[in-house]
Amino acid sequence: MDVDAQMARLTRGAAEVITAEELRQKLAAGRPLRVKAGFDPTAPDLHLGHTVLIRKLRQFQDLGHHVLFLIGDFTARIGDPSGASETRPQLTEEQIRENTRTYERQVFKILDPDRTEIVFNNDWLGGLAAGDLLRLAAQHTAARMLERDDFQKRYRAGRPIGIHEFLYPILQGYDSVELRADVELGGTDQKFNLLLGRDQQRGRGQEPQVVMTLPLLVGTDGERKMSKSLGNHIGIDEPPAEVYGKIMSISDELMWAYYELLSDRDEEGLALLRNETGSGARNPRDVKADLAAELTTRFHGPAAARAAAEEFIARFRLHETPEKMPEPQVALRLDDGRAWICEVMARSGLVKSTSEARRLIRQGAVRVDGER
Amino acid sequence: MDVDAQMARLTRGAAEVITAEELRQKLAAGRPLRVKAGFDPTAPDLHLGHTVLIRKLRQFQDLGHHVLFLIGDFTARIGDPSGASETRPQLTEEQIRENTRTYERQVFKILDPDRTEIVFNNDWLGGLAAGDLLRLAAQHTAARMLERDDFQKRYRAGRPIGIHEFLYPILQGYDSVELRADVELGGTDQKFNLLLGRDQQRGRGQEPQVVMTLPLLVGTDGERKMSKSLGNHIGIDEPPAEVYGKIMSISDELMWAYYELLSDRDEEGLALLRNETGSGARNPRDVKADLAAELTTRFHGPAAARAAAEEFIARFRLHETPEKMPEPQVALRLDDGRAWICEVMARSGLVKSTSEARRLIRQGAVRVDGER
Repeated sequence: MDVDAQMARLTRGAAEVITAEELRQKLAAGRPLRVKAGFDPTAPDLHLGHTVLIRKLRQFQDLGHHVLFLIGDFTARIGDPSGASETRPQLTEEQIRENTRTYERQVFKILDPDRTEIVFNNDWLGGLAAGDLLRLAAQHTAARMLERDDFQKRYRAGRPIGIHEFLYPILQGYDSVELRADVELGGTDQKFNLLLGRDQQRGRGQEPQVVMTLPLLVGTDGERKMSKSLGNHIGIDEPPAEVYGKIMSISDELMWAYYELLSDRDEEGLALLRNETGSGARNPRDVKADLAAELTTRFHGPAAARAAAEEFIARFRLHETPEKMPEPQVALRLDDGRAWICEVMARSGLVKSTSEARRLIRQGAVRVDGER
Repeated sequence: MDVDAQMARLTRGAAEVITAEELRQKLAAGRPLRVKAGFDPTAPDLHLGHTVLIRKLRQFQDLGHHVLFLIGDFTARIGDPSGASETRPQLTEEQIRENTRTYERQVFKILDPDRTEIVFNNDWLGGLAAGDLLRLAAQHTAARMLERDDFQKRYRAGRPIGIHEFLYPILQGYDSVELRADVELGGTDQKFNLLLGRDQQRGRGQEPQVVMTLPLLVGTDGERKMSKSLGNHIGIDEPPAEVYGKIMSISDELMWAYYELLSDRDEEGLALLRNETGSGARNPRDVKADLAAELTTRFHGPAAARAAAEEFIARFRLHETPEKMPEPQVALRLDDGRAWICEVMARSGLVKSTSEARRLIRQGAVRVDGER
């Protein structure tokens, strides 16, 4: 593939490329590029939010490039010594090993193992002396650090920023030096940190890495960045019916964002789909089902996806009342004469859990005496 | 000596003691206290400014306490990697050893060697891991750090502060942990850093050190803190005639500050001296000569001090024109028809250098055709 075609493919869907010209030059050199992306071993369950970035890594691999899948185990071993707001539990070596295995199992659903190197930054940061860290720190100023969006907000609001928090992005930048990264990928919220890698590399006489940021995927709540801790995630390791059902539960608006960031459809295909849906030629519910099928297939294969779709349809009959309704009976103790609908559904065996009940209610799949 | 008497002696002349109550408790415990003071090995020539603090250390020793004379060689080995404004040359091990020897030779003119331990912080900081430094850094916030007076000024003025500059005071605080310091002494400009030592010790479950700050001695220019790099210093290793002559050159106002901070006279003796001078009963010049004699004696012994005083009087005859004036002849090339008086004096052999000439002019010791 020529450089122009590679550029078009690689930069598609990226939020920012710093700089596109440098990426072009690196591609033109013809050698396999070293493409870095960092992952935190504290939360090893990958969700669709991660896959935006991992799929981009895969695109690099498909063009012959080399992926450095960095596990940030150095910081995980330290945890957050200040015990501040950010959740950074301290992990043992055994926990990190186990989390890494979990990562591997999931990530190779997308990445090519032959072109992936899993690396651990404790291998070089663990042996770093305090004096070395001082030398790295000297390349950055407090003013520059406080320009980082979240630091600025916290500083202005009088919320504490530990000095160690200034050091973590510096070390992340130093990882790029150690790995001789040509490109680093991250979410748009990582832009500042990724740019520090360029500074560190320049300071050590290396050619600065190209920074590529990718848009953040909003969670199923339609409001915040997808995150396991917020409970608005769709894990790629979740059962097919869960993946399928969760996608069916998102709003129509969010569906289009997911199409943009997650689907294999090309731009023309997407534009057509939007037009047909806009004109009423296609039902949004069917378009969402296509997306649910595509993503469930990606992680569980076509057979499991088909079964999930059938189960979904069978269960909800697309809001039509089945001819023969099950009529379970539930005995509940009512302290104040009222019953919680989710509990009624769960105890009756209609659903497996109150959280499944909640999801179905959100989807509009539940009616009481004919009313949603 | 009872605790009250020790307190009175030790706190006399201190700018601040944090806290006096803690110091009293430590003294009451009856064991020898570990009294820390840090010195930078980059400028090993001690001057009168240093002696304010060193004499206070000596007072602790006279009461049976133990002095930890800390050479900050860890930072000197690193230098200032940012190459920023502050002058922090990187020193080799050999230079540090040599500077330490120079310190020792000078400092034992004041300190009791039997109660002095010279320690080097590279012994523990050199082996410190980056991860350990992160843990130390996590105990401090950026906001707190920026409260330090000079950081605040630089930050507001948009002048750069390297992140490593936040780490140095943290490490200085950690030195107190390693040394299990009971008391740390420093200039008033060190107050912030000394307080970090208390934080670090508390964080490690140690009883926090008492912080004692001492007033800064103004240099011979009467304006700025005495400092070798500003050239307004009086080195304790300078020849007796230089020490004597430099003190004779200071203003009357500055003389009283020097009496306060450097003289052995007690408060009553000083009050009397001030009164007698104020009333005209004593000539300020004679009072200054007493101070010059006291300080020259301190570092060079009474014989050398007497010789310096005699030489000074003989040379300047206290502004009276000698009966027999030397009449040197000087040949000068005058480019614009004017001659620089200092050069005339130096070339004629009346003085040893143009800087000596300058000092004599400042002292009012030079007249041209009878006019100062």
